[in-house]
Amino acid sequence: MNVNVRGRIRHYRTVTFNPARNEVLLIEQRLLPHEFKIIATKNFRETATAIHDMIVRGAGAIGATAAYGLAQGALVFRGQDLTRFRRHVDAVYQTLKAARPTAVDPVNAMNGVRAAMRAGKTVEQQQKLALAAAGEFANEDVAHCEAIGRHGAKLIRSGMKILTHCNAGWLAFVDVGTATAPIYAAQAQGKKFHVFCDETRPRSQGATLTAWELAQQKIPHEIIADNAAGHLMQRGEIDLVIVGSDRTLGRTGEVANKIGTYTKAVLAKRHGIPFYAAIPLSTIDWRLKSGSDIPIEERQDNEVLGAWGVESSPKTKVPGPKSGRRIYVRVANPTSRARNPGFDVTPPELITGILTPVGIFKPQDIWNRRRELGFSD
Amino acid sequence: MNVNVRGRIRHYRTVTFNPARNEVLLIEQRLLPHEFKIIATKNFRETATAIHDMIVRGAGAIGATAAYGLAQGALVFRGQDLTRFRRHVDAVYQTLKAARPTAVDPVNAMNGVRAAMRAGKTVEQQQKLALAAAGEFANEDVAHCEAIGRHGAKLIRSGMKILTHCNAGWLAFVDVGTATAPIYAAQAQGKKFHVFCDETRPRSQGATLTAWELAQQKIPHEIIADNAAGHLMQRGEIDLVIVGSDRTLGRTGEVANKIGTYTKAVLAKRHGIPFYAAIPLSTIDWRLKSGSDIPIEERQDNEVLGAWGVESSPKTKVPGPKSGRRIYVRVANPTSRARNPGFDVTPPELITGILTPVGIFKPQDIWNRRRELGFSD
Repeated sequence: MNVNVRGRIRHYRTVTFNPARNEVLLIEQRLLPHEFKIIATKNFRETATAIHDMIVRGAGAIGATAAYGLAQGALVFRGQDLTRFRRHVDAVYQTLKAARPTAVDPVNAMNGVRAAMRAGKTVEQQQKLALAAAGEFANEDVAHCEAIGRHGAKLIRSGMKILTHCNAGWLAFVDVGTATAPIYAAQAQGKKFHVFCDETRPRSQGATLTAWELAQQKIPHEIIADNAAGHLMQRGEIDLVIVGSDRTLGRTGEVANKIGTYTKAVLAKRHGIPFYAAIPLSTIDWRLKSGSDIPIEERQDNEVLGAWGVESSPKTKVPGPKSGRRIYVRVANPTSRARNPGFDVTPPELITGILTPVGIFKPQDIWNRRRELGFSD
Repeated sequence: MNVNVRGRIRHYRTVTFNPARNEVLLIEQRLLPHEFKIIATKNFRETATAIHDMIVRGAGAIGATAAYGLAQGALVFRGQDLTRFRRHVDAVYQTLKAARPTAVDPVNAMNGVRAAMRAGKTVEQQQKLALAAAGEFANEDVAHCEAIGRHGAKLIRSGMKILTHCNAGWLAFVDVGTATAPIYAAQAQGKKFHVFCDETRPRSQGATLTAWELAQQKIPHEIIADNAAGHLMQRGEIDLVIVGSDRTLGRTGEVANKIGTYTKAVLAKRHGIPFYAAIPLSTIDWRLKSGSDIPIEERQDNEVLGAWGVESSPKTKVPGPKSGRRIYVRVANPTSRARNPGFDVTPPELITGILTPVGIFKPQDIWNRRRELGFSD
């Protein structure tokens, strides 16, 4: 999507590949929203480190990074010996997989690349196929998000006020994003609307990443404290809620997403406001039988006890983009601890629809219509 | 309540008076939770500044501070001329009133002091009556909070997990607090329970002030992101919600309180969890006919766009109490703005009971039982 780099609007993807230099190019997301910088990983180990250190984050984005990383690793192999090549690629695969051991996206993406490579009869053929498959994975990620945008844009009318939570934006994918896809598509159709970004404590992805995305894209928006959405709904100031999903249960229609999503769904239901979860098909879990079986990660409590930001005067309206280094401040009472569940589960009766690349589904219908959604026994 | 000052537990009130030095003693609340310090105002002007600069905040606390400030100002008058004395006291009154022009508590408290002074026939008598009335106001504030605690403690059973929002603790009153009163009373009765403090963005009074209070009082507690309460309720981890109230409508039972209160009430209702608002009688508004008539203050957006804290390592478990000065960091995208409503209104059907010094009332019953609650035509 668009990024304003020193006054010039340019189009970027979150993850790309430079074949001439065999480098993966990534937006350094840890510097956002205070600084925009592209980094290039020189080899697959650096790519693994970028995943591990969260230079890149988000389901689609780390999937594509791992896919490119595998190709990047395969391409440096010299020789004709297919057995040794396979052993080399295995080592690359394991290094990239270990960078984020609980994530399924890098593994799925790399399995796709490896499957494509098998059609090659020589090392060189397999190397070319690896790179092509990684590129295809990235392009498909974008195409899926664009399809979500096409279906979702129909939900948006001019004049609407839309609430979103956390960042399921283009920074979490190769481009476009999921929850943001309808927003970007509606903008492209000339619709005028306003977005409220939940701050999304404790990691503040709404205030940092989503707000940054919307600002680059010149979409009118305001950040709100997570506490404020209920009040705005009471006063009729929210017409539509769109969130992402980390995992959607194919059998029940339950949606696991960033902590606080459930609360927004409960509020939306009370106020009769449509609530949609936008998902890539890869995040549907066809196995689990109940949302209560989803393990909820308890994250480190320092996220809740403090905040990361750039030192600034509270009176400065717009601090410069390079106003200083990002630091951690302890906000809370120093002798108190915190609970920090990272995700929650929203039941299907609170969800108006699941926005997918192949259309909008009632959450209760997903299992019956599972063939349309790519389920195979 | 208790404060641990360098390992020694001492009892403090938020506001006290030193007659020997004619000083108002205040906890410097802007330094909390990182530093505990008592400041003494040398004259009524300094007392007004302390109210204005939010060294002291909270309904009961600023009421008592203004009452003591009026006595402090009256006491420096030299002479016998009652007319000149009255003019002097008027000037003191206006100075203290102007320190927080929209607050009703300082005005009500000072009106009480002035009414008491009228019984005096000499300047000296009136000066003594002023000080006695201010002291009585402070003691009554404590007695009301203690009465809330006696009624509210019955709601708490050992083993319970209690959620509270913002700070309606002893720091907001002269002592004991309102939402915290049942907690402190139940602790005194030997009950064992756990408190979750909502962080309460954007000003984080739960993470800073309430958590600090509970830590001093050795009450087991954890801070949670405002986003997390819904998840904890889903998993059966919250048994009771107690909040304060800035204004309760006597005619409707609606409760205006810190932004986010309404959201917690909606969640509690969904999960069948009792939800109580604890209020001093002075905050009942007998005039307004609808919660939608309550003006909701839109506060400056830098509160939402950043956070105040002490620079620290995110890996430090317990930073020392004097680990540095409190700074503001900009968290959000620098080019984005925020909406920042400070309060919201919770309708009576979501409120199990209103906890008052004279007992627990159904919100719908307040108007019919208004005589018990001190209403007079």
